[in-house]
Formats: sequence, C-alpha cells, structure tokens
Amino acid sequence: MALAPKFDADGLVTCVATDARSGDVLMVAHMNGEALQKTIATGEAWYFSRSRRALWRKGESSGHVQRVVEMRVDCDQDAVWIKVEQAGPGACHTGRRSCFYRTVPLRQPGAVTLEFRDGERTFDPKDVYGDK
Amino acid sequence: MALAPKFDADGLVTCVATDARSGDVLMVAHMNGEALQKTIATGEAWYFSRSRRALWRKGESSGHVQRVVEMRVDCDQDAVWIKVEQAGPGACHTGRRSCFYRTVPLRQPGAVTLEFRDGERTFDPKDVYGDK
Repeated sequence: MALAPKFDADGLVTCVATDARSGDVLMVAHMNGEALQKTIATGEAWYFSRSRRALWRKGESSGHVQRVVEMRVDCDQDAVWIKVEQAGPGACHTGRRSCFYRTVPLRQPGAVTLEFRDGERTFDPKDVYGDK
Repeated sequence: MALAPKFDADGLVTCVATDARSGDVLMVAHMNGEALQKTIATGEAWYFSRSRRALWRKGESSGHVQRVVEMRVDCDQDAVWIKVEQAGPGACHTGRRSCFYRTVPLRQPGAVTLEFRDGERTFDPKDVYGDK
C-alpha cells in the first residue's frame, strides 16, 4: 500500500483530471516525481510539460488553477486520476472548459470527421495567455 | 476537423475509459492506429498492450467487453476519452470494477500510504483469467 509510481522512460506518469462535479474529463497530462510530490503536498495540480520540459503549476499563467478533491492511483501505478475543482472558466489552452470538445463518430464508413461537442469557448486564450 | 491522431514515438495515444453512467475512470490504456481504427469501426474498445506488444480487444479473455457510447479526442489529439458501458463485473485485471481503487492522501506530512476506496473485488481474477 505504499505509493510507488511506475514512471516511464521519460520519468513520467499519466494524469487524468476530471471535474469533481460533472465527472467530465478535463485534460490528460503528465507528472514527473516532483509534480506528483507537489500535487500531493499542496492539493493543487502540478504537471510536467513535455513540450517545455518544465515543471508546470496548472494555472500559473491563466489563474485557472485546479484544487484536487481526490487523487487515486491505478493498479500498476503508472497513471493517476485527480478529481478537481477547476478555477476560472476552463482547463483547455484553446479556451474551452475541457480539452475534449470534439467527438469521433463511431461505426461510420469512410473518413472520420470530428464534431464539436461542448465546443463553445468559455474564454479567449489571447486575453489569458497573451500572444505567447 | 479531420481525425489526425498524434501518436507518440511508440505509435500510441493514451486512452481514458470512463463509466458512461457513473463517470468514474475505469482504466487508462493505450491505442495504436489499428486499435483506434477498430474501436471506431466496431464501437467496442480495442487497445494495444505495451507489455504484450499486441493488439488487444478488451474482454477477449474475460468477456468483460466495453461498448463505447461516445469517443472524444483532446485538443492536440494525443489522447482519447471513451465513455463505455462495461460488460461484466469490472474492468480491472485485479478483479475490481475500476483500476483506480486506491486513493493517495493529500496534504499529509511524511510517507504516503495508499487507502482502499471502492476496493472490494467484484470478481475473482483466477476464475476469469485462469493462472495466466
């Protein structure tokens, strides 16, 4: 019953963040040991950005922090699930509540075209992140 | 709006499966191109087992198949979320409904000890998988 994360070759575990109220998946990201430790110690979500190769406190730019209501670890400890209270209008850098704002139609012949679902923007990324 | 999965160096995307009714995360696994295509075509969950290096129809051994109610893709298309109807008593190979049956206590000093949450077994893995 000890926490013994099984980090991958890059030193990361996968983290799924769901909305504590709706249950919707907000985002999938990664944590290194330090991000995991900081999340556990502070009760706020910290990740490791694979593109920036840097520790990342969720909301550090946008203010859209995530308060962790509960953290769980899976059977082989290579993934964690956090139920969060998402501050601000959304979790996604595109300006939506969730990163999962498009559906993939199932059991259709031919090319797959995505469809928006909950795709309306809840904030303008330019206002929040500037022109970065 | 085309489906254009961003596979990682191993040719995989991350897949989060949630229970379509409760919203609980059942498991986190991976799909290669073929698993994704088969899931889309059949509406049943197919994964790629990293340990066995093989395509894997969820439930092929246990009968605990997953009917996909909805599939979504995230903003950068390196993760998919499927809402599923889980057949049988559970998704986890340890004999539980979900792979996430242990919590990680937050904001506690000292060593982290996991706690069971929804940890009761809903089936006996030996009955389902034999001695594999």
